[in-house]
Amino acid sequence: RAGQPHELGGNILVTGSNRGIGLELVKQLLDNTGQEDHIYACCREPEGAGAEVLRALANQRPEQVTIVQLDTSDEDSVTAAVQVVGERVTASGLNLLINNAAINKPASPALLSATSKADMMEVFETNVAGPFLLAKVAIINMSTLVSSIEKCPQNFHIVQMYPYRTSKAALNMLTRCLAEDFRKHSILVTGVHPGWVITDMGGKEAPMTPQQSVLGMLSMMSSLSDKDSGKLVDWMGNQIPW
Amino acid sequence: RAGQPHELGGNILVTGSNRGIGLELVKQLLDNTGQEDHIYACCREPEGAGAEVLRALANQRPEQVTIVQLDTSDEDSVTAAVQVVGERVTASGLNLLINNAAINKPASPALLSATSKADMMEVFETNVAGPFLLAKVAIINMSTLVSSIEKCPQNFHIVQMYPYRTSKAALNMLTRCLAEDFRKHSILVTGVHPGWVITDMGGKEAPMTPQQSVLGMLSMMSSLSDKDSGKLVDWMGNQIPW
Repeated sequence: RAGQPHELGGNILVTGSNRGIGLELVKQLLDNTGQEDHIYACCREPEGAGAEVLRALANQRPEQVTIVQLDTSDEDSVTAAVQVVGERVTASGLNLLINNAAINKPASPALLSATSKADMMEVFETNVAGPFLLAKVAIINMSTLVSSIEKCPQNFHIVQMYPYRTSKAALNMLTRCLAEDFRKHSILVTGVHPGWVITDMGGKEAPMTPQQSVLGMLSMMSSLSDKDSGKLVDWMGNQIPW
Repeated sequence: RAGQPHELGGNILVTGSNRGIGLELVKQLLDNTGQEDHIYACCREPEGAGAEVLRALANQRPEQVTIVQLDTSDEDSVTAAVQVVGERVTASGLNLLINNAAINKPASPALLSATSKADMMEVFETNVAGPFLLAKVAIINMSTLVSSIEKCPQNFHIVQMYPYRTSKAALNMLTRCLAEDFRKHSILVTGVHPGWVITDMGGKEAPMTPQQSVLGMLSMMSSLSDKDSGKLVDWMGNQIPW
């Protein structure tokens, strides 16, 4: 409802949920939701070795967690996942969609000279076209990593990452467009920067654990209201310039 | 040189130069440059019906204009064009590269429901990966259409254009990254919004002719200095927020 904080609960879908921030989101959402809520934990390879911890979680709480195969770069996979989830949630619909899945190529420091057109296209496909496809078929509240053009000069020389940076700037524009598009339905669309977190993508030198990041993000998400739609905020709720 | 305005002249490459703003850029550059300067006018189909006016220009001024086949979405085409131009400019290099070529799909109003993943990928490929490839092999000073995330709410409901908007936000990030990357070589990289112009892309209702837009852009470009690198400015030199 207009102006009201967004309650965390109901049917929640998390992409890229088998590791890193996505896995921690599932864990903490489980701690903070009840019997009437359900988490759809999506990942590319539900049967793979990389999803072992997620499978254990789902086995412990089968009434609260369903693992769904989803490769956001594969249009057929998105359609199939949406159908599976759609049949389960039926009339109540999806209450929260966290577009967490993302890739980053090539490996750091990802200089211009080492970056190919294929890297640009592949990163755009997963990081922008994936959330775009999900937005076409579901409610969305998307999570993004830092992607501020304004702040680029402050961090460019630490890691270049052309494909990742451009895809995330495009994702910010997608967030802003969807916020405008869905405002008439009172659906919030907010970009979230989780901070620099110790994950496969963030590396071991990161200053924050997934636990700390997700704790902040869930607290921040639960207090989101209409005025936050179309913004980019960090895990503490601080707004980040485009 | 640091702090000095960027002089228009020498070897200039313009992409998408067979019509609209690109064609007008070639025309006005011809009026403003001399015998010692040379324009490499690139387009997808130099022999096609759509390049008739450009061919006539090149026939009138063969010492000043060379037409070069270039499809920015085709990696081989980019490589071949760079080789052709590289052999001609030899040691003096390229002085100005205007990445003007861009596409917009699907046709307006381009609602979310009418937009496919293929549209997203195709627009990104030409509008972002093309300039990216050229930046890898040449000096760049790029031209972009409006793409401000900040200003999205003011114009989103006139034309939605998800693929175009996200690709241009990504292009702004590319501009900013390249500006940082090339600062050590004193190469300026600036994003330029040409205004809403009467072209095939802009339509007939646009308030400005290509002549007016290009007149403004060339004047603005000729006064660019180091402090403008990494910015997005309009045809009059006004800065646009990200």
